[in-house]
Amino acid sequence: MTTSIGVMKESEPGEHRVAVVPAVVPRLRELGCDVLVENDAGTGAFLPDSAYTEVGAAPVGEAELLERADVLVCVRPPDAGRVERMRQGQVLVGLLEASADPGRVPALTRRGVDAVSLDLLPRTLSRAQSMDALTSQASIAGYKAALVAADAYGRYFPMLMTAAGTAKPAQVLVLGVGVAGLSAIGTAKRLGAQVTGYDIRPETRDEVHSMGARFLDLAGVTVADGEGGYARALSDAEREAQQEALQQRIGEFDVVITTALVPGRKPPLLVTQDALKGMRPGSVVVDIAAGPHGGNVEGSQPERSVLIADGVRLIGAGNLPSAMAPGASAAYARNITALLAHLIRDGVPRIDLTDEILAATVVSHAGQARQGGGAR
Amino acid sequence: MTTSIGVMKESEPGEHRVAVVPAVVPRLRELGCDVLVENDAGTGAFLPDSAYTEVGAAPVGEAELLERADVLVCVRPPDAGRVERMRQGQVLVGLLEASADPGRVPALTRRGVDAVSLDLLPRTLSRAQSMDALTSQASIAGYKAALVAADAYGRYFPMLMTAAGTAKPAQVLVLGVGVAGLSAIGTAKRLGAQVTGYDIRPETRDEVHSMGARFLDLAGVTVADGEGGYARALSDAEREAQQEALQQRIGEFDVVITTALVPGRKPPLLVTQDALKGMRPGSVVVDIAAGPHGGNVEGSQPERSVLIADGVRLIGAGNLPSAMAPGASAAYARNITALLAHLIRDGVPRIDLTDEILAATVVSHAGQARQGGGAR
Repeated sequence: MTTSIGVMKESEPGEHRVAVVPAVVPRLRELGCDVLVENDAGTGAFLPDSAYTEVGAAPVGEAELLERADVLVCVRPPDAGRVERMRQGQVLVGLLEASADPGRVPALTRRGVDAVSLDLLPRTLSRAQSMDALTSQASIAGYKAALVAADAYGRYFPMLMTAAGTAKPAQVLVLGVGVAGLSAIGTAKRLGAQVTGYDIRPETRDEVHSMGARFLDLAGVTVADGEGGYARALSDAEREAQQEALQQRIGEFDVVITTALVPGRKPPLLVTQDALKGMRPGSVVVDIAAGPHGGNVEGSQPERSVLIADGVRLIGAGNLPSAMAPGASAAYARNITALLAHLIRDGVPRIDLTDEILAATVVSHAGQARQGGGAR
Repeated sequence: MTTSIGVMKESEPGEHRVAVVPAVVPRLRELGCDVLVENDAGTGAFLPDSAYTEVGAAPVGEAELLERADVLVCVRPPDAGRVERMRQGQVLVGLLEASADPGRVPALTRRGVDAVSLDLLPRTLSRAQSMDALTSQASIAGYKAALVAADAYGRYFPMLMTAAGTAKPAQVLVLGVGVAGLSAIGTAKRLGAQVTGYDIRPETRDEVHSMGARFLDLAGVTVADGEGGYARALSDAEREAQQEALQQRIGEFDVVITTALVPGRKPPLLVTQDALKGMRPGSVVVDIAAGPHGGNVEGSQPERSVLIADGVRLIGAGNLPSAMAPGASAAYARNITALLAHLIRDGVPRIDLTDEILAATVVSHAGQARQGGGAR
């Protein structure tokens, strides 16, 4: 029996990524698998069905995919209707957000689906790094956020010296120095801006410096190291002290990019409306954390760009990896291929719960819900 | 008597620039001038009237401006209605497009306005370089075009090496290696793309190489040096040969930015629909030359972004400097201040037609139309 990998079309509206791109299909076939792709699954990433056919994958309809696939792969969680049509013993792999939204798991368990939630990957484990989809997607989000900011900003990012005078470089502040923040710092630096980074975790100072950026020193602010590479949540008093100190500095910058996300939690508020009003007209703020639960910037909404106060542009970024679907899908496909190469042994998927990676990421197995948790 | 400089609000719809920004007002006052600013003239560049008041300029209404100003300054040509309200002996300075659209001049001459068309500046003259508004604005257009392209492109510009594999850098082709082209090359390079430049003028090869980019070699294409830093227009046969050779290479690139503008002429067609159809899905083309007279890319229209063929994004860029109004206005203001410092002697504007700069740029003086022409 050959294992069939089924690539689902994403069900989330506005999601243009696809979990598997044609470039990784040969590798999946080397694992001893057939590859089925739902019709039009790659369209949003400029990958027509014919591009899959050319490398030996078979485009099929939704019903056939859900029926025939042994391992279903996706980027974001499939909608409830699709979960109801999955079958006993089927394996589902994707960014299932089991930690952020544990309510999704029971339906999978009831259907007897073995679910691997890639967002729970133990990210500090070196052999898991090639599977680290949160990192690859956050890196894209940071890159794209810096581009969006540069495009929205009305002046040059780089310093420019001409016969008629000099244009000063843009002053860019990146709040939150995780993967997305470092990527935003790197991209803004490439474009020639003067970049400052800030994070409540003190060990990020060296990372910021190593990229040639400055670290913002806030007087009297508590530091907060957390597990798994994320900052721990601050206490109310700490958050207030941090906010107050930060607000007074925001006005020094032309561009602010906020990237402070803690999976499954409401994003911390880092920039208040008052701070926005203290910025110079023409300044730009991009909030990567903008989502249904709020964002890092007061008043930001996903996929919304608004002009506030005397001309400060506030951009709630929303799903940036989807806005760069071809590149984001290619990176994600490499991550999921590495995970599948780990999961599939001798052509068959094996849920080995003694394995550190699977122990952390499997949230439903043999009709039992499990508590994953590598990422927290 | 003190000379009054009057800063006009731009009349062109969608034009957000302003000819004078507060930063240069002190220098204009040093020349012995008063500065009047039309109400809301700077709003599109995030410069409220109060920002002008703070440095000693006086916001006034349109009628008062046209009545009191001795020297009127603008970015693009004022509309016909305003010209009809100008008065005998008033001096008008701006990018009047007297060469591109000579029909504008007679009305100015009839009104007895002394008109200085900044686009006719002898650009190769070293003491004119600080006044070179075409250069400062083209430089912004090139920078912005590269940002627009990077933002529209669905993958990384830079090469990216990660634990899961490597993303290749974007292949960017810049057609036309004038000021805008060099600026686009520089910006795409900064972002980490692999950049290739091409221009029909062979001496641009060294400039392309000096920026670390490749020069595209087209077999069997005639070279075309022109005057004043612009390419001369090609003959029909030459254009055809160039087109044919180019079309076959377009498909090698992920991103194409076209910048071939010859002032006052229809832009040369450099990329045909067939060539666009030969590009990979997900490719991006930005046409800086897109305007009412066509563009460098077949089918491009100013301020329009369309998806053609199997997913090639064609962006007709239109007025890019206006889209970066704060930076573009600051640069323009430095240029116009340098010109005014040259024009105004002992506090009074003097149209000295024996001066090389004024001889080239004055298109109307003492009721006589003049043939400028430094830029051609």
